[in-house]
This record gives sequence, structure tokens and C-alpha cells, in this order.
Amino acid sequence: MSLKAELIDVGTELLLGEIPNLDAMILSQSLAELGIELYYHTVVGDNRERLQEALKNATQRSDIIITTGGLGPTYDDLTKECVAELFGKKMVLHEESLRTISDLFHKTNRNMTDNNITQAYIPEGAIVLKNDWGTAPGVIMNVDKKHIIMLPGPPSECSIMFQERVVPYLQPITDKVIASKSIKILGVTESAVDKLLAEMMVNMQNPTVAPYARGGEVLLRVTASAKDHESAEKLLEPVIKDITEKLGDSVYGVDVENIETAVVQMLKEKKLTFAAAESCTGGMISKRITDVPGASEVYLGGICSYSEKFKMELLHVSPETLKKHTAVSKETALEMAEGMRAVSGADIAIATTGYAGPSGSIASPDNPVGTVYVAISAAGFSDCKRFSFWGDRSRVRNVAASSAFNMLRHYILSIK
Amino acid sequence: MSLKAELIDVGTELLLGEIPNLDAMILSQSLAELGIELYYHTVVGDNRERLQEALKNATQRSDIIITTGGLGPTYDDLTKECVAELFGKKMVLHEESLRTISDLFHKTNRNMTDNNITQAYIPEGAIVLKNDWGTAPGVIMNVDKKHIIMLPGPPSECSIMFQERVVPYLQPITDKVIASKSIKILGVTESAVDKLLAEMMVNMQNPTVAPYARGGEVLLRVTASAKDHESAEKLLEPVIKDITEKLGDSVYGVDVENIETAVVQMLKEKKLTFAAAESCTGGMISKRITDVPGASEVYLGGICSYSEKFKMELLHVSPETLKKHTAVSKETALEMAEGMRAVSGADIAIATTGYAGPSGSIASPDNPVGTVYVAISAAGFSDCKRFSFWGDRSRVRNVAASSAFNMLRHYILSIK
Repeated sequence: MSLKAELIDVGTELLLGEIPNLDAMILSQSLAELGIELYYHTVVGDNRERLQEALKNATQRSDIIITTGGLGPTYDDLTKECVAELFGKKMVLHEESLRTISDLFHKTNRNMTDNNITQAYIPEGAIVLKNDWGTAPGVIMNVDKKHIIMLPGPPSECSIMFQERVVPYLQPITDKVIASKSIKILGVTESAVDKLLAEMMVNMQNPTVAPYARGGEVLLRVTASAKDHESAEKLLEPVIKDITEKLGDSVYGVDVENIETAVVQMLKEKKLTFAAAESCTGGMISKRITDVPGASEVYLGGICSYSEKFKMELLHVSPETLKKHTAVSKETALEMAEGMRAVSGADIAIATTGYAGPSGSIASPDNPVGTVYVAISAAGFSDCKRFSFWGDRSRVRNVAASSAFNMLRHYILSIK
Repeated sequence: MSLKAELIDVGTELLLGEIPNLDAMILSQSLAELGIELYYHTVVGDNRERLQEALKNATQRSDIIITTGGLGPTYDDLTKECVAELFGKKMVLHEESLRTISDLFHKTNRNMTDNNITQAYIPEGAIVLKNDWGTAPGVIMNVDKKHIIMLPGPPSECSIMFQERVVPYLQPITDKVIASKSIKILGVTESAVDKLLAEMMVNMQNPTVAPYARGGEVLLRVTASAKDHESAEKLLEPVIKDITEKLGDSVYGVDVENIETAVVQMLKEKKLTFAAAESCTGGMISKRITDVPGASEVYLGGICSYSEKFKMELLHVSPETLKKHTAVSKETALEMAEGMRAVSGADIAIATTGYAGPSGSIASPDNPVGTVYVAISAAGFSDCKRFSFWGDRSRVRNVAASSAFNMLRHYILSIK
């Protein structure tokens, strides 16, 4: 039986954009892991009419409806009432919930106001999900073969309530498991990947393959469904092998978090150390590699040379090079990388220099905003690549840093 | 005329919980600022049938429908097609968009594959929104008194396309204006702010005041609605004045993007230069300050000293200090800051050293994970503060960097 689920998040603050919809993201991930297909998210405000409409639509097309929010003590918390109405049920007092709530107020020395009692009312015949992480209990109604699961809105309560209370309820009624892996690709465009794999992506049913482009990278998500986790994984294997063979060196990892994590792992394996001299990326390479726990084993450190003084005095770039070729040039990038390697004693050094924008800032006709030189220096090896990135300052810097990590990766791959 | 809007975000990755729905949050805020009431968010996957159903529901109950995503070059990008079908329109080639797209490929030296051409097809009679920040143009269809506005999915493109292309389109058809300002606070907790302002926040109707805590900061959002922008702004003024007076020095700005932007501005005004020596923040201070366009006027650069070698050789921290007090100590932090100032010639230098975690990594009973020393050095002045931050590695590093900027800010404020 393939169960269809949908999500209804209730809260005017979501419609005003005051908070990100973390509940939707967390519950979507959790449902995917359970092999339950989620077809819709809907967000409505704390409004009776629209919440009722959303609930009605949902019960017509889905088997499992999960709501978040609207279980609190105030007048605009309407979820339980609306669900009860939809199925023609009365609201009844749940004594145990009332005790739990009043105990909590007592324990934290707060006065319980009358409206807190409403949190202990539930639709007749519903299952109560005890909330050990907040005041409003969750509720499940199982009517007409539909499962309506109501969870509190705060993400910290919603996510743990789902894991601890809802997963044990859902597991017996689902008989499918979904496994997925992400193939991470750098150095080719989404369209090029699409062209290479379009036929496969359109025709495959199980697993499915879907491409996403993000920050200069392409991610291919391969997803299989099967009766258990092992069988799902087995379905993934040959497809992932096939795709990684087709894409060759541009695949930097499968299920690896990001390029910097892949690079730290490769440096560890080869027992190599690394340092970075950054001009246009301004510390981003340093920041990203030190985001990886344990990076200190391979990353000695870096210099953010945001001024010519730093380039000359700390990285020993010659004043002549800066004068003749400017700070944004192949020659300066190479001297920065060589200087960084000499100063740090690292096995490999990377340097970046370029124009990140915003447009209108200093740049030259030959080197417009988006031009970035990335140089690499190692014993007996040096190279520099010129990139032309599109996008705003933040994108240019981010993609430049990724490309620098990718050049480092290609160099490590080339070492015998 | 009060216009009803709703949002449809298209993308299976949202239903799988792979990415947060930033588009929904950004567009919700922007619509609220325009005084347009948003009644629903709906998320559907890259699925023709369900996207069509969502579009059909939306056009029946709302005046303005904004879609995000599904405008790209791949087979599962369906938004424009589905909208065209709903209104019985043909898809036609938009020559100018094709030129823009092929120019972009040409400029960035990439090959344009055939599927990129599909991005230049639009529903007959639609308005094209030029996309200067990515490849897929946006589209507006105005049929049967409904406005269907289709924007690209990546948040960086979606948000700027809305501001630059959609606001000018919507402004003439709306008659209420909402203005809001954010008061940014560092160095006090949300509960302290809440305690100070609780009565005001509960009782005010127009403007309203709402607090949010995020990354060690508190943000107070003050929102007023009026018939025009000027009147709304006038309502905000006295409230913002009152709050900033109550909170004093802990307010680092109103409507300023972040602490690093505030600090760059202050340094520019005082014509001061700055450099950073980073251990536990590992380049984050450098990265964040160079995110600010024009930072090069005041930021000379930094050293990410992720190894003792760097601390000693580049920052001249004495081996004795490292041996006696360890790398995570007040003494090391101060020598790092002093060394950084000497090496760089900057007016002010900041240094960070600490344990960012994950827990279990090296740390000592006296200095558990989350302990960070931040030191500052200027002519005739030096100081070091010890912080104990909670949270994971990423939070600790981020809040440590913010606290370093905040120490810098307080120092600049103290200069006569």
C-alpha cells in the first residue's frame, strides 16, 4: 500500500515571512525516510475558514495529513476544533493532559491562566500524544481510513514529537522504505549533466534520478523504494556506479556533505598539508575548510591578503608584478600561491584573486566583475586557471572558493 | 481593493526536505511590506498533475498567484507550460530572452545545450521579466483579472527578481502600505529584551513590535501600516526612538544588515583600519567582513592561524606563552592580537582562540567546548574577554565572530 501524505502548517507568522518553515523541512525529511510520499505542503494562517478548506482538500486526496501549529492556548489556535468539526466530533476534556499542563506550570512557578485549559481539550475518540518538550499535547485522529496527525508548531517540539510519538504510529502502517544518495558534481553545468543523462532520468522509475543545481555545483539525487532498506540500497548501487562512470572526474563524492569535506578526507589519506592565500574570496576558503571538524590535521592556516601591503609583505608578491600585471592577474595569483607555500611550509597552497563585485566596483574591461584567478603551488608543480563567474558578490565568492577546492582535488588525484 | 495573494513553490526537493523554503519566507515578507494579504503557501513537486491542480485551486480563490521554481532547462521544469495550458495559451519563443541566455553562455565560455533554449519559451501574451542574476527569465501572465507571476526557484534570484521586477508591477494595483524596520541588538539575551519591553510589545497595535532571536543576536521588528509609505514611516519613528533609548549601547543598528556592515561603516567614518587573527573562527571574521562591499577600504586582511606554527611564525606568539597557557588562553589571544596589529600595521586588530567543538574534541575541564577568548589590540589599548557559548560548532564559530565584531564596535564607540 502506497500511502500519500500531505502537510498543513498553520500560522499567520509563516504567511508574514516572520519565521522560516522549519517544520515543513524537518517533517518532509522524516517522511521521506519512512518511505511515505509527501505530495503537498500547505500553509494557512490562523483563520477558521481557510484552515477548514485546507483540511477538506487534504482529506479528499491524501491518507495521512500532518498539521503543525494551532494547538496553543490562545483564541486563534484552531486546529483541533477544525478537525473535530470536519469529522463531526465533539471536543472533550482529556484529564491526564490537564494534569500534565498544570504540573508544568507548578514546576516552573508560573500561574496557569484559564486559556491553558483549552490545550487539554481534544476531539472525541482521538489519541493523545504526550508532549514532554512543551505544553500543548499532540493529537491523532483515525477516522474513515484517514490519519490526521496534529503536532505543535515550535520546530523544537514538532521534530522530537514526530520522532518519538508519530514514527511508532506510522511504521506499522507503511510497508515501503525509501533510500537515496546524492552524487555531487563540480566543474560541469547542470545542462551538460542533463544532456548526458536526460534519457536515463526520464525513463527510470525505480530508482529515480533528479538533478539540482546550486552554488555552481550539480547534485544528482538517486532515490529507490523497496520493502526494506537493504533492498533499496541494492537498487541504488548499479545506477550510482553507472552515473559516476559516465561523469568521471567531475564527481567529487557520493553522499559527501560538500567539496571541502571531500578535500579534507583526501588530504588526510595522502598525509598532505594545505594553506590558502585569499584575496577576492577573503577568508571563505579558510572558513569553509575549518567548518569541517578535524580540518586542523591538514589545514595549517591561511592569509587573507585584502591589501597590496599584505600581498607584498606577508606573501612576498613582488611590487613589479603588482605594478605590471595588477593584483588581479595570473602572475599575482601564482606568486601568492608560491609565497603562501613558502611562508606556511604546507605541501600545497592555493591562492585566489579576482573581482567579486558588486558591478561598478573596480574591474577592468579585460577582467570584468566575476573574473577570478585561482593558482595552486606544490613541490615541482604550479598552475593557474582563469574563471568567469556570473552572479552577485556572494555567489562569485562562493563559487570561486568551490572551484579552488576543486583544483586542489584534481591536483591530489593527479599525484601518483 | 484588497488583493488576495497566494504562493505556489514548485520543487520535489522541498517535499523531500532537502532545502529550506527560503522563497516562501522572502516573498511572504515582501508581500506583507506591499500590504498584499497572502492567504496560502502551497508546495508541490515537479509533477504535472499536482502542479495543475494547485494552479487551478489558486486561480479560483486568489487574485495574485506567485510561483517559484520550475523555470529551468530540464525536462521536469513545468511551470510555464502548466500555466499556459490552464489558460489555453500556446508556448512561443521569446527572441530577446534567447539572446540574453546565449550571450551569458558566450560570456562565461560555456557551451549552450539545446535544452537551454526551452528557457526562452513563454506563454503567448505573457510579460517577460529579465533575469540579470541567472539564466531563466521570469514571466507574468495577466488573464481573467488574475495575475500569475512566475519566478525562478533559487532564492538569490527569486528575491531580487521580486524586488526589481515584480514590485514595480504590483505597486500600482495595491492601496495599502506596510513599513517595517529592524532594530538589531547584540550582547543581551532575548529574555532580557522581552522583560524590558513586554508590556509595550503586547499592547501596541500599530506599529507592532515582535522579537526574534537568531545566532546570538536579538532582532526587534517594528511594523506599521498606513495609506502611504510616508505615513507608515512616521508611525515607526517615535517607537524606534523609544526602544533604542531603552536598550542603549546594545543596539548596533536599525535596518542595518548585520554587525559586520555596521562595523565597516564605523571604521570608514573614523578612518581606521582593521586586521584579524583567527584561530577557532578560522577565517569567518575575514569572510564576513569581506562579504561587505567596499570592506577593502578598512580591512587590510587577516591571518587564519590554525596551527601553532602559524601562531608563532606569522603572529609572533611566544613559544613560552603557548607552552605555559596553551593556545586557548587569554595570554595567547592577546599576543595574537598584538602580533596581528604589528604585522599588518592596522589601527586595530582582533584575535580569537577557543574550542568550537564538536564535543569530545580537545578541550580542557577549565575551558570546555564553547569557550572562546576574543582579544583586541590598538595603540595604547588592549583587552581580552572570555566567552562561554552554547550550541554546535557552526553556532559557536558564528557567535564568536559576531562577538568579536561587537567588541570592535564597543572599542570604536569608546574612542573620543
